[in-house]
Amino acid sequence: MAGACVIGVDVGGTKLLSGAVDSGLAVHHRAQRSSQGLATPELLDTLAAIVREAAEAAPGPVIGAGFGIPGVIDRRAGVVGACPHLPLEGVPFQALMEERLGIQVAVDNDANCAMLAEWRHGAGVGLEDVVMLTVGTGIGGGIVCGGQLVRGSTGGAAELGHMVVQLDGPPCQGQCPGRGHLEWYASGNAIGRAGQAMIAGHPDSALAREAAAGRDVTGALVTELAHDGDAASRAAIEQVGKALGAGMVTLVNVFNPARILVGGGGIAAGDLLLDPARREVAECAMPSLRDNVEILPARFGADAGLLGAATLAFEEFAR
Amino acid sequence: MAGACVIGVDVGGTKLLSGAVDSGLAVHHRAQRSSQGLATPELLDTLAAIVREAAEAAPGPVIGAGFGIPGVIDRRAGVVGACPHLPLEGVPFQALMEERLGIQVAVDNDANCAMLAEWRHGAGVGLEDVVMLTVGTGIGGGIVCGGQLVRGSTGGAAELGHMVVQLDGPPCQGQCPGRGHLEWYASGNAIGRAGQAMIAGHPDSALAREAAAGRDVTGALVTELAHDGDAASRAAIEQVGKALGAGMVTLVNVFNPARILVGGGGIAAGDLLLDPARREVAECAMPSLRDNVEILPARFGADAGLLGAATLAFEEFAR
Repeated sequence: MAGACVIGVDVGGTKLLSGAVDSGLAVHHRAQRSSQGLATPELLDTLAAIVREAAEAAPGPVIGAGFGIPGVIDRRAGVVGACPHLPLEGVPFQALMEERLGIQVAVDNDANCAMLAEWRHGAGVGLEDVVMLTVGTGIGGGIVCGGQLVRGSTGGAAELGHMVVQLDGPPCQGQCPGRGHLEWYASGNAIGRAGQAMIAGHPDSALAREAAAGRDVTGALVTELAHDGDAASRAAIEQVGKALGAGMVTLVNVFNPARILVGGGGIAAGDLLLDPARREVAECAMPSLRDNVEILPARFGADAGLLGAATLAFEEFAR
Repeated sequence: MAGACVIGVDVGGTKLLSGAVDSGLAVHHRAQRSSQGLATPELLDTLAAIVREAAEAAPGPVIGAGFGIPGVIDRRAGVVGACPHLPLEGVPFQALMEERLGIQVAVDNDANCAMLAEWRHGAGVGLEDVVMLTVGTGIGGGIVCGGQLVRGSTGGAAELGHMVVQLDGPPCQGQCPGRGHLEWYASGNAIGRAGQAMIAGHPDSALAREAAAGRDVTGALVTELAHDGDAASRAAIEQVGKALGAGMVTLVNVFNPARILVGGGGIAAGDLLLDPARREVAECAMPSLRDNVEILPARFGADAGLLGAATLAFEEFAR
């Protein structure tokens, strides 16, 4: 008989992704649905359906399911707190899902799941102190500190995109009432904004030509052109990488981690983004701390949430 | 026979303070010496002498000594790393001190010791997630996260004065190569600087009069005048409190603590400093996190280091 499996589920604001995962973290079957426009009961039913679909295709017995949810999770009660992108606030998710599925269910924040996957199986294996920045539309994060995942007093810790890096900076977008936060300066959206700002000063750049031709100046476009060698796009990413590095200076001085991992869509820029961040840390973090930290890309890309939810389920149910 | 005691030692850059401490954290005898100008062997001998002096006056058997040192401590090896204010860098402190004293010795960073005292016996008792800011000449800190003290991968964590709060801010003073750090905007020195900057715009203030009479505009003077009702001094402290609050926004969003404690000499300003910080957190931290955090003064003042070093010794040797 094949080894035990779990079902990992990445509960995203736009899509729901499940997979049957074995203890070596191989994914044997995936199921995917849109999460957009679903009311709470349909959302729960859809999640149950993609768990069942993955479970039927699993090569071994299924010992439980793990869910990574983009919200604040009260893990003792299994209840979802603030959850900006999905109608799950106040939902006793664990109990309702166990009732629907008839198997054990574990729930955590999606960024914590991604951190867990990297820590147990990815670019943070074996470390006691590691921090992960997920650079996407916004910036998320996860923290392992002294060999345990940092969750905070009510499950909401590690909002690393919402560190203040500019006292008089612009207001955050979405549900955060703050201003001058790292997310504004160093997210995927920030790459797009920095690119936009480069155009006037670089009218002959590939970036200016693409913009003149009507293309949206997004982080993805700027990254693509930077990889093709466009100087204006590279300058935009360098500026964002330096700001990302300033956020890392805070993380180095606060956590003294052995490693900082960078995941999310923004890591498509690779060392064009990470090298300026590394330089900022080398110049500005406390000397005895900066000499002991590596800044590396995360190992898992789009699968980090699914694999992390599966890792969570293995940790909770495989004993 | 009286209960067991430990000797707690606060190893400061200007003075060395020891005390015989019982398990109820009462201090039975204190000994103090200057630490200025001492070379390494004299410093170690002086420390041994004040431990012996306190031990002789202890009301019960002495089971060990704890030392809080203002530097990076490798606790596994008992060796001091970077230590800007004392000639202890590279010194195998624990072994040398055990040899001198013939009793068990525990060593930790002084800010960690202060955090430990507050966590076990002070304003953070019973909490799993609590952060402490020590606002003095600079800003130090301690962090308890998930029920354990945060030390980092090489013992240098919790440099909370060195979080970046201004991307293009002024350079740090001393050994930190960074810029725009919280310490610049929110330390005791910052209160003095903010007071200095208020004078031109408030020529009739008590602060301006004291400055004209030749008094140094220090954080202590500004605080004294603010308590007496001087509007310019109050405005200076308010400005610093708001910046301190911005640092707390980062701490709330990163750690989701149940409580943030403020200690150090800066807390002499009391709610004149803490209220603007509380307002900044209420306005700018993530809503689900700010509603679950209290901002309070630390319980122990100048004794925090000594009591923390004693608490450390009890935790290590009283089992």
